[in-house]
Amino acid sequence: MCPSPSPQGHDRGYIIPIGGAEEKVNNPDILKRFVGLCGDREANIVIIPTASQLDDTGERYEKLFRELGAGYTYSLPIEKRIDAKNEDLLQHLEDATGVFITGGNQLRLSTILGGTAVAQAIRRQNAKGTHVAGTSAGAAIISQHMITGGTTGIVPTEDGVNLAPGLGLHNTLVIDQHFNQRNRMARLLSAVSYNPFLIGLGLDEDTAAFINNNNVFEVVGSGAVTVIDPSDCDHTSMAEARTGEAVTIINLKLHILSAGSHFDIGNKVAHID
Amino acid sequence: MCPSPSPQGHDRGYIIPIGGAEEKVNNPDILKRFVGLCGDREANIVIIPTASQLDDTGERYEKLFRELGAGYTYSLPIEKRIDAKNEDLLQHLEDATGVFITGGNQLRLSTILGGTAVAQAIRRQNAKGTHVAGTSAGAAIISQHMITGGTTGIVPTEDGVNLAPGLGLHNTLVIDQHFNQRNRMARLLSAVSYNPFLIGLGLDEDTAAFINNNNVFEVVGSGAVTVIDPSDCDHTSMAEARTGEAVTIINLKLHILSAGSHFDIGNKVAHID
Repeated sequence: MCPSPSPQGHDRGYIIPIGGAEEKVNNPDILKRFVGLCGDREANIVIIPTASQLDDTGERYEKLFRELGAGYTYSLPIEKRIDAKNEDLLQHLEDATGVFITGGNQLRLSTILGGTAVAQAIRRQNAKGTHVAGTSAGAAIISQHMITGGTTGIVPTEDGVNLAPGLGLHNTLVIDQHFNQRNRMARLLSAVSYNPFLIGLGLDEDTAAFINNNNVFEVVGSGAVTVIDPSDCDHTSMAEARTGEAVTIINLKLHILSAGSHFDIGNKVAHID
Repeated sequence: MCPSPSPQGHDRGYIIPIGGAEEKVNNPDILKRFVGLCGDREANIVIIPTASQLDDTGERYEKLFRELGAGYTYSLPIEKRIDAKNEDLLQHLEDATGVFITGGNQLRLSTILGGTAVAQAIRRQNAKGTHVAGTSAGAAIISQHMITGGTTGIVPTEDGVNLAPGLGLHNTLVIDQHFNQRNRMARLLSAVSYNPFLIGLGLDEDTAAFINNNNVFEVVGSGAVTVIDPSDCDHTSMAEARTGEAVTIINLKLHILSAGSHFDIGNKVAHID
């Protein structure tokens, strides 16, 4: 699934992948910034709790966003594919200034939302200006090529990552979360070396990339965003490597970006303030 | 300690850091290649087991190298600083075609060998053509700036690595071992961002960099050598970061090199065959 084109006169809304475990009480920088973008008291935030199998995930975020100043919040009750076809839910998405996709299992998101009117509406609304944030599984689903699993460690292998089609709000990023905490360099390197048109984004917990409508992001939160840019890659042995064998990749660019740093995805340039 | 200059008419011997746990029985590619360089039947390999606290480490390697075809092997009995001052041992080093430094604790190597005639002799002999290999702790000690500890994970921090002076056979590399197996990206990134004149080498287990006298290495073994080249680094926040805080580093070059790949350390270029 590809990003929807923005209709004339509309700017794309922010796309905000978050690495999971975002701070909710003491320094909720990320969630507060999201609520601010969505309009604070004017904010109408729709929550998609589908990745989670806990009953109260949607309700918890409804309450949390209201405590952070959002005027209106509503959690879409989507637990099965049939729910995602409910036309009544589409009006909520049409009216939303922000959409928040919770954590859980990203395969629940892709299997339940994939190909439904809700998935289409999220892409369309983002293209028209609605901000879309997702944490953990909700961050993974944002990209066209979504990581669903893989090996831990540093060195990429031919079988080091599993990909599935995501929601497709962004098509050149491949996004991983809990990055530093779960040692996920190997799977992100595996993904970018499958096809070096991809840019790898490894998001630490409590860390987000706020991607604006110029395709430039700012890092917000307490950890780092690791960027792997393979655009100068001269060689990868991915196609020849046998299962489990270490893969050679030559000439990757690596940036470690903490709060306040920026990355221009289109031009592939990192900078501070 | 800096590398000794090579006397006229002499080429520097190979410098061979190995990431630990090198295969000894089934496919002992690394050790076999080392024995070959040292002259096979003409090889005279001196082992330095000082890092290890096991009684039989030296003896095991003596036997192993002979089984792999080395003509003569001898383990230097150095357990204390006083042993490293024994002039009789120097003759063994003078006669050696190869020196092998075993694994164990790199701080035993630096505290026991540092500043002794043996340390000086290893540097001088390497400059005159003797090949020097070291595995695990023996690999760490090879560089001028030696990693002795640090945090696991990916993202560097101001306190993410501990350095101590090493043997100084090579002065621009900082070497880490068990790299993929122990998730040591964070400490290697911390080290290179302390001072970006350094090039970081992360050696997986059963993987070696055979550095020739032109300062070019070939990768041998079953894993990968991760190279972090910060020479284009535009910015690091290392000097401003507070303890434990994620550090920003912009524009690193990253290569993952498996067997048969090469890296030219002087010109900072990776290539295959």
